[in-house]
Amino acid sequence: MSYNIRLLISCPDKKGLIAAISSFIAMHNGNILSADQYVSDQGVDRRGAFFMRLEIEGEGFGLERREFGSTFAPLARQHNMDWYVSYTDIPKRMAILVSGYDHCLMDLLWRWAAGELDAEIPLVLSNHPEPRSRVEHYDVPFYHLPVTKETKAEQESAMLGLLNEHRVDLVVLARYMQILTPRFVSAYPYRIINIHHSFLPAFVGADPYRRAHERGVKTIGATAHYVTEELDAGPIVHQDVTHVTHRDAVDDLVRIGREVERRVLARAVRWHLEDRVLADASRTVVFE
Amino acid sequence: MSYNIRLLISCPDKKGLIAAISSFIAMHNGNILSADQYVSDQGVDRRGAFFMRLEIEGEGFGLERREFGSTFAPLARQHNMDWYVSYTDIPKRMAILVSGYDHCLMDLLWRWAAGELDAEIPLVLSNHPEPRSRVEHYDVPFYHLPVTKETKAEQESAMLGLLNEHRVDLVVLARYMQILTPRFVSAYPYRIINIHHSFLPAFVGADPYRRAHERGVKTIGATAHYVTEELDAGPIVHQDVTHVTHRDAVDDLVRIGREVERRVLARAVRWHLEDRVLADASRTVVFE
Amino acid sequence: MSYNIRLLISCPDKKGLIAAISSFIAMHNGNILSADQYVSDQGVDRRGAFFMRLEIEGEGFGLERREFGSTFAPLARQHNMDWYVSYTDIPKRMAILVSGYDHCLMDLLWRWAAGELDAEIPLVLSNHPEPRSRVEHYDVPFYHLPVTKETKAEQESAMLGLLNEHRVDLVVLARYMQILTPRFVSAYPYRIINIHHSFLPAFVGADPYRRAHERGVKTIGATAHYVTEELDAGPIVHQDVTHVTHRDAVDDLVRIGREVERRVLARAVRWHLEDRVLADASRTVVFE
Amino acid sequence: MSYNIRLLISCPDKKGLIAAISSFIAMHNGNILSADQYVSDQGVDRRGAFFMRLEIEGEGFGLERREFGSTFAPLARQHNMDWYVSYTDIPKRMAILVSGYDHCLMDLLWRWAAGELDAEIPLVLSNHPEPRSRVEHYDVPFYHLPVTKETKAEQESAMLGLLNEHRVDLVVLARYMQILTPRFVSAYPYRIINIHHSFLPAFVGADPYRRAHERGVKTIGATAHYVTEELDAGPIVHQDVTHVTHRDAVDDLVRIGREVERRVLARAVRWHLEDRVLADASRTVVFE
Repeated sequence: MSYNIRLLISCPDKKGLIAAISSFIAMHNGNILSADQYVSDQGVDRRGAFFMRLEIEGEGFGLERREFGSTFAPLARQHNMDWYVSYTDIPKRMAILVSGYDHCLMDLLWRWAAGELDAEIPLVLSNHPEPRSRVEHYDVPFYHLPVTKETKAEQESAMLGLLNEHRVDLVVLARYMQILTPRFVSAYPYRIINIHHSFLPAFVGADPYRRAHERGVKTIGATAHYVTEELDAGPIVHQDVTHVTHRDAVDDLVRIGREVERRVLARAVRWHLEDRVLADASRTVVFE
Repeated sequence: MSYNIRLLISCPDKKGLIAAISSFIAMHNGNILSADQYVSDQGVDRRGAFFMRLEIEGEGFGLERREFGSTFAPLARQHNMDWYVSYTDIPKRMAILVSGYDHCLMDLLWRWAAGELDAEIPLVLSNHPEPRSRVEHYDVPFYHLPVTKETKAEQESAMLGLLNEHRVDLVVLARYMQILTPRFVSAYPYRIINIHHSFLPAFVGADPYRRAHERGVKTIGATAHYVTEELDAGPIVHQDVTHVTHRDAVDDLVRIGREVERRVLARAVRWHLEDRVLADASRTVVFE
Repeated sequence: MSYNIRLLISCPDKKGLIAAISSFIAMHNGNILSADQYVSDQGVDRRGAFFMRLEIEGEGFGLERREFGSTFAPLARQHNMDWYVSYTDIPKRMAILVSGYDHCLMDLLWRWAAGELDAEIPLVLSNHPEPRSRVEHYDVPFYHLPVTKETKAEQESAMLGLLNEHRVDLVVLARYMQILTPRFVSAYPYRIINIHHSFLPAFVGADPYRRAHERGVKTIGATAHYVTEELDAGPIVHQDVTHVTHRDAVDDLVRIGREVERRVLARAVRWHLEDRVLADASRTVVFE
Repeated sequence: MSYNIRLLISCPDKKGLIAAISSFIAMHNGNILSADQYVSDQGVDRRGAFFMRLEIEGEGFGLERREFGSTFAPLARQHNMDWYVSYTDIPKRMAILVSGYDHCLMDLLWRWAAGELDAEIPLVLSNHPEPRSRVEHYDVPFYHLPVTKETKAEQESAMLGLLNEHRVDLVVLARYMQILTPRFVSAYPYRIINIHHSFLPAFVGADPYRRAHERGVKTIGATAHYVTEELDAGPIVHQDVTHVTHRDAVDDLVRIGREVERRVLARAVRWHLEDRVLADASRTVVFE
């Protein structure tokens, strides 16, 4: 079965990095299918950071999976690299968390079934019971973990247990309306994607459509971002907007916004699954 | 010379308003070229507000300009109307205020010369000297009023004097970087349009592109709004955005943003000049 | 149960039409909730066409449904009106036809279940068996009518029979890949909406994504239009596009295009169901 | 004075190209500031084409300009490369051709003066006299070459003479309404950019806005493309669109379209000047 190797690298910029990396690949007979590279803004007296994403043909590549790490390590050490390798025949395992609104969930499931999202979905978790039948229709296991003030801590532990048990790589908050604790967030650094139903940094927090309507904005949007401890402040992966008019009441904004939310979330999830997103402190580098 | 009459009305909603108004026009032999109407969201126990814009053919209309007011007044009084009438053969008089960045200014002047903006431009005012030659190339008078902390109050008086002397109907802040005093603002209610170089309510105040870059947003925008006493908080007339990527440094955002700024401002100004914008408290009704 | 009345009118333009119509409504104690009006471009020596859409509160309106027609008829006759009245408590009956690609179908079903589309869906028809389970999951009857060259005429008759039996008002071709015969088309004038996966009039006919790729376009789109006898030439209801790059192979265009197709079709269907679309010869008037 | 070196390469794809190229740069002590790479779709039994764009810091690079060619030649020959090198301290020389509509011209001149377009503009050529004063206001020489049926061949020779004399690298047709002869086109392969005021391949040829209006489209667009012998059929560099409604008459489409035309053309010109556009037969590779 044919597969590709994806290599993500970030390190301090210096001369010769591309040559060093691509020569390493060539030396092991690798065929580079695509290469993306970016150097972040340099300050006055310092070099920027170097980011690279390589996709290499698996067939014919001279390094076994188990030996890649030890062979690449000296080069990585020499240049102070953070690096990450993945193989396209081992899809990431994605959990979806959802509450009462299921439009993002259903969109992700449809796309997944249509082959747009290269992942396994071992489970969908919800604090609401309603999505069960639609989820199970896609033969995806559904877990209902109702949350109250009293049970919140306990249920989060249960969730972490389930995610751990199912060896989840990526957690998608598809309009999951519970705020996660720092413990949860820190268990999946840069691996929890949330969709916020506003154009961040506008309308952080609850009820953005109502507040957008009150402010009289002429455009509404949605933002997919990695979750960090601070609410709606994590690195942004993707954003988009759509026009609205004075005729649109709050309910219309909710309806129109759903369209943007699901589109923005699906694209962010796809990019993450394809290893196209690298963290650059509070920002992201996205190699589309 | 052919002309049209524009009639703007806002009042508490009730039954029969459209019939009453259009019958008044028909009774005086008016030909309605376009009619737009909107009723704002009603609360639970009250009716909403009614907004209407009519464009009537001047030729054949049975009321002289000087008698329109007195003839329409009883109907207006009966329904508690705020109303406004304008004639398309009397273009509005628009002043443009600008500082060091002239892209919005030059765009407005080009569109005006191309016939896109139906207005007279009696003057351009600036606290910088540079725009003079480009403005005068369009045969528009240019006034340079440099502003320092000490002269600010005095210069604002001079500006108000000039605007008054030139009987200005609309003040456009085309990237004018001085904050206007409440005295100035209150002299032109709903008649000062500002372009803010962010997607409001995100990034109110200074340096929005730098702050957008720091936040790592994937979209930047611009907002045209009426100026009120509170900074960047006035009713929004138009907004638009464009995509950016991690590759775009602050300078790129500035360049890309210029494109959006001038487009958004030009459209807002055009709508205002065509009497398409009505104030609905802190929001606007725009009959495109 | 509260409901609204929608009145659509088109006729030759003349003075006093709005007054005549709104006075008719006022005379019968009707409360106009929204009014949209448009006069098409006039030629040099003739008046244009007048189009109007009114939404009137059902409660308190003085005419019974059965007497509306006879009461309105004299006015309609006097002004040569084509007119149409509908009541929002009687949703339209919409059939969806689909072939092998189900993204538009699933999107419509999801929106319908979410309350975005005010319609009944008495049946989904397909020449492919696959969609059955997903359709029935929404408790919508599914009919599989396979089509071959030999059975095409016969199956179309069967389809017309089913549509007739289920008293269908609107036929949506959600990527239905069979060309309908003139007999079928003429049975539902301005009541068959098709989604074509290109930006019409570019790429009429088969395989638009492949042809778009060959031409090297930088934007792809989709068009929702009423079906007429000539292929992909009917009046356009809605269009939208999205950017693509040289990196996007034909398969990517197909995937990216699906996003646009379902968005464009859903919006066109919604507008039709809300009686917002009027035919103006080969064009449409859309009162958003 | 600091400068960068831009190296564009296209050749048949094979293993090790990136390593070979980047090692060549590293061997000569070059600092790669940005690297973009793309391999076009491969057919079933053949490899695709490889495209690369490198931007290298001038300072510290070990090859003199006059020796780059001879030093790089063996590697280029070995891999069958088409290649091109440019230096950012030698701006391209751009001529603008224009007819009666000056919006694209004025936009390019404004952007050029604002520093957005890194080029010299030795001349503007027009078959109309009107643009002279506005062009000369930017201190750019203006040549008026009126064209009639009889003088067309002669004037084209005069134009080619002027372009040659001014050592022009890029010819921009900023709404130049004369069709160029094959002789002219072949003198500047992939170096003539035209803006066509439609969304190609829709509405090839004359009067696209009128035809768009007749077809009743809901979106209009503009396309920047390299000029080839076949009318409006050259490789597309950039396209964009904007929404229109039934209310927009042909004149409105013209006005709204101007906005898109100038934006699309400016972006295509900028990309070309930055050596971001490579020809891939009838398509383009654009490294944004």
